Order: sequence, then C-alpha cells, then structure tokens
Amino acid sequence: MDLRKFIRDIPDFPFEGIIFRDVTPLLKNPQAFQAAIDKMAETVSDIDFDSIVAPEARGFIFGSALAYKLHKGFIPVRKPGKLPYETTSIEYDLEYGTAKLQIHSDAIDKGEKILLVDDVLATGGTANAIAQLVKKLGGEVAGTCFLVELTYLNPREKLRDYLIRTVISY
Amino acid sequence: MDLRKFIRDIPDFPFEGIIFRDVTPLLKNPQAFQAAIDKMAETVSDIDFDSIVAPEARGFIFGSALAYKLHKGFIPVRKPGKLPYETTSIEYDLEYGTAKLQIHSDAIDKGEKILLVDDVLATGGTANAIAQLVKKLGGEVAGTCFLVELTYLNPREKLRDYLIRTVISY
Repeated sequence: MDLRKFIRDIPDFPFEGIIFRDVTPLLKNPQAFQAAIDKMAETVSDIDFDSIVAPEARGFIFGSALAYKLHKGFIPVRKPGKLPYETTSIEYDLEYGTAKLQIHSDAIDKGEKILLVDDVLATGGTANAIAQLVKKLGGEVAGTCFLVELTYLNPREKLRDYLIRTVISY
Repeated sequence: MDLRKFIRDIPDFPFEGIIFRDVTPLLKNPQAFQAAIDKMAETVSDIDFDSIVAPEARGFIFGSALAYKLHKGFIPVRKPGKLPYETTSIEYDLEYGTAKLQIHSDAIDKGEKILLVDDVLATGGTANAIAQLVKKLGGEVAGTCFLVELTYLNPREKLRDYLIRTVISY
C-alpha cells in the first residue's frame, strides 16, 4: 500500500512557504491507518525499549496505537500547564521564539529504555528537546520513530546521537 | 485487573475544588493500558460504526488505540487553528466562558456511523459539542465510549440521545 497517497499537501500552513503534510486522510482510512502503524512497528522491531514517549497532539495518535500494538507503556509529553502532577520542563528554540514542553517528573524510571514517537520529523527540534527531557529523568533514548520525514529540513543533524526510523520520506 | 488502582487523584487541578482523575499511571503500565483499551472495545462490541472521532489531546490516546484495535478509521477533533484544511466549528458553553472545537469539513461521509471516544466523561459538554459537529457534517452518532465516567457531574443528562459506554465510574 502506498501510504503517500493518503497524505495531503497543504501549501502555506501554518506559515507562508511551508507545505504541511496532512495525515488526516491516512488516519480516516482504516487500511492505511493499520498499515502506517504496522510499518512503524516493523521499523523498530530490532530496538529494545520499555515505553513510548510522544508529544501532544498528533504524536499521541501514532504513539498510542504503536504502544498498544507492541504492548508497551505510553508516556505523554505536553505543553505547559496540561499535566496535573509534578512536571519537568524543557525550553527550546524555534525558528521564531521558543517553545516549552513538560513531562511528569515520575514518568520515567532510572535506565528505562524509551522509544520517542511523533507523526512528522521536520527540523528535529521537538524530538531533540524530548530526548533531553527523557535523559533529565534518567531514561535512555533507545530510538526514535516517525511516520514522515522531511529530509529537506535536515532533521538528522539535530538527532545525530539517536537511532532514527521513518516510514515515508519527502 | 482493577484499573482504578492506576488512576491517580489530583486534588484542586485544574481548579480549586476539582479532583482530577490522572490516567498517566495507567498509560505507563503496559498491562493496564492494554486492559483499558480491550475493555473499551468490549463495551462497544454491539455497536455498528465506521470511524472513531476523538478530541485532542487525551482523547487521541484512547481513540487512536481503539481505532487501531478495531480496524476503524480515526478522525481528530481539534482546538481552533490546528487543522490545516477547511474546517467546521462549534462553540459551546463551559462553566466559565466558552470553548470552540473544529473538525475537517470533509472528515465525515454522509450517513457515516461514528463512535465518539474520550478519556473522561465529566459534564458531557465536550462530548455533546462533538456530537453536534458530527451531525453538522451529515454523520450519525452510533455511540459514545469513555474510559472514566464522573457520575457525580450527571453527564448523561446532556447526552440523553446517545448510547454511552464507560469502563470505570466515580
């Protein structure tokens, strides 16, 4: 199945000059959604990990289904103020301004092996920030997995220290 | 498995006087997470539906894994400005102020049977708003499913027209 057919290009979203890769048609199609999760699972079949960490909101969609399929735990990373318990934060640079992400401070055990999951690997900035959060809590980044990689943004430069698995490349 | 053991009570979050039911310990435990999704699936086994609709962000976690397990499509409902294509909106009242949710205008086919999924059924306000969105697009609400129901908030009053399935009640 060619999953690329189920990804819709939206020009100038969220900013002029950006082509947004819209995965909602893929999610809507049961066969495409199954295939996407199954292929993501295949790409990480050689990685030994305990839990999946994924950021809100689209990361939850892929991280959760993958955790369910692979019988792993799921750990959410959220925007500030959303997690109800004690949190650990990281601030990181965007092209314009900065962003902040949080994780529950008790979410990861010492030495726990983490697979980081998101829908799209773009600049690698968010993934790199989440990897820092995982390490702050004593976890180990066993690898990263994304449905889509935007190779023209050179995301692998920022993630040189980690295994990277992707299903679809642009 | 007593899933209630994996739900953490957080007093006074997000507001004083509210007990927040934190599902992150349940998500983190692979057995509890599997059991939660499997039990949600059991409760809807008699409902005929085509796709799952769920709101960001925690709704994505349960809606996505359930859609994957049941081989259904997944349709996201999001806060304003997050969906890249043409959207249809609904505004609804909260205890203080109003909230707005959006869905892609082409997300639901005429007569499509929808299962609405979220983590917690509290006042029923969000679920009712999403049901209105589904109907605006010509879909049919086949049922609703939540991991947790806060019965003391009387959510079933607002959702009188719909089948409601829940796994854990407080």
